[in-house]
Amino acid sequence: MSRPAHKRPEYHKINKDLFVLTYGALVAQLCKDYEKDEDVNRYLDKMGYGIGTRLVEDFLARSCVRRCHSYSEIIDIIAQVAFKMYLGITPSVVCHNSSRNEFSLILDKNPLAEFVEELPAGRSALCYCNLLCGVIRGALEMVHLAADVTFLQDRLKGDSVTEIGITFLKKLDEKKYRRKK
Amino acid sequence: MSRPAHKRPEYHKINKDLFVLTYGALVAQLCKDYEKDEDVNRYLDKMGYGIGTRLVEDFLARSCVRRCHSYSEIIDIIAQVAFKMYLGITPSVVCHNSSRNEFSLILDKNPLAEFVEELPAGRSALCYCNLLCGVIRGALEMVHLAADVTFLQDRLKGDSVTEIGITFLKKLDEKKYRRKK
Repeated sequence: MSRPAHKRPEYHKINKDLFVLTYGALVAQLCKDYEKDEDVNRYLDKMGYGIGTRLVEDFLARSCVRRCHSYSEIIDIIAQVAFKMYLGITPSVVCHNSSRNEFSLILDKNPLAEFVEELPAGRSALCYCNLLCGVIRGALEMVHLAADVTFLQDRLKGDSVTEIGITFLKKLDEKKYRRKK
Repeated sequence: MSRPAHKRPEYHKINKDLFVLTYGALVAQLCKDYEKDEDVNRYLDKMGYGIGTRLVEDFLARSCVRRCHSYSEIIDIIAQVAFKMYLGITPSVVCHNSSRNEFSLILDKNPLAEFVEELPAGRSALCYCNLLCGVIRGALEMVHLAADVTFLQDRLKGDSVTEIGITFLKKLDEKKYRRKK
C-alpha cells in the first residue's frame, strides 16, 4: 500500500461528513449487537487497532515524518500531522508527568461526533469514539511502541473538552523502534 | 447543520484512508451479523439511505449548486461535485435511454474498496459498496426525486469497471423539487 513519500495526490482529500455519518452507523450497529457499553467500547477499540495497524505504513510514507527521539515528538506528530490528516483537527498536547511518558490530546471539538448531540438513551458508559484509541494504539504498536490509549474526558458525557490519554509503556531508553524500510 | 454557501472551511478536508478502512470494518461487522449477502446489501442500502437524507442539506449548502432543469444536470452534479467532494473521484456518466431518465456512473477505480482485494469467501453476492446506493437514493429523495440506485457492475466481482445505475422514477415534467431555503 505504500507510496513514495513525495507523492501526496489531491484525490486523497475528501470532505469528512460522509465518513462521520458512516462511523455513526457503525457505532449504532454495534450498539444493536452488544448490550453492554463496555463490550461496544472494547469492540470499537479492537476494530480501531486493526485499522491502525493497516494505516500506519501509508501514514509514514505520506507524512514524511522523520525518526523521533522522544515521546513528546511522537505525540506532536500524532496531534499535528495524523489528526490533521485524518480528522482535520489539531488537538493540543499536555504532558502529565516528569518521566514524560504520559500525555493527553485535548480536542476542543471532535469531528467524529459532530452529528451526535448526546449519547443514546441507556448508553451512558459508551465511549462513542473509542475506535480512535484503537487506531492510535495499533499504529504505535506497528512502530514498536506499546501504549495505553483511553478516553479520559468526553464532551458527549458532559465534560468541557474531549481528552484522549496516551501512556507509553516503556521507558524511552528501553524501547527500540524504527520505520519500516 | 447547514452553513452559508460561501463558507467552505479547510478543516473539512481529510485524507480518506481512515474512512475507507472504517467502512471495511462496518461491512465486516454486517457480514458477521447477517448470513445472507442479500440481507447485508439491503442493510447497507438502508444505512446509506439514512446517511444520504442527513448529508444532502449540507451538500447543497457547501456545493453552491443551482437548481437543475434536467436529470442530466443532476447526474453531472452527483458525479462531478458529490463524488469528488466525498470520495475524491469523478465517475464518468452514461445515459441509457432516449427519455433520459436512466443513467450509469462508471467508476474506473473505487476508493471505498481500495483496501479490498476480493470479496470474502462465500460472499459472492455481496455488494460491498451498497451504502453508496443508499446515500444517493436518500439524498435524491430529500430533494423530491425518487430513484432506483443499484450496482450494475463491480470490479470486486470481476467486472472491468464499477458501475452504479440510477433510474429516476418520474418523468421530468411530473416532478417537483426545490432546494430547501
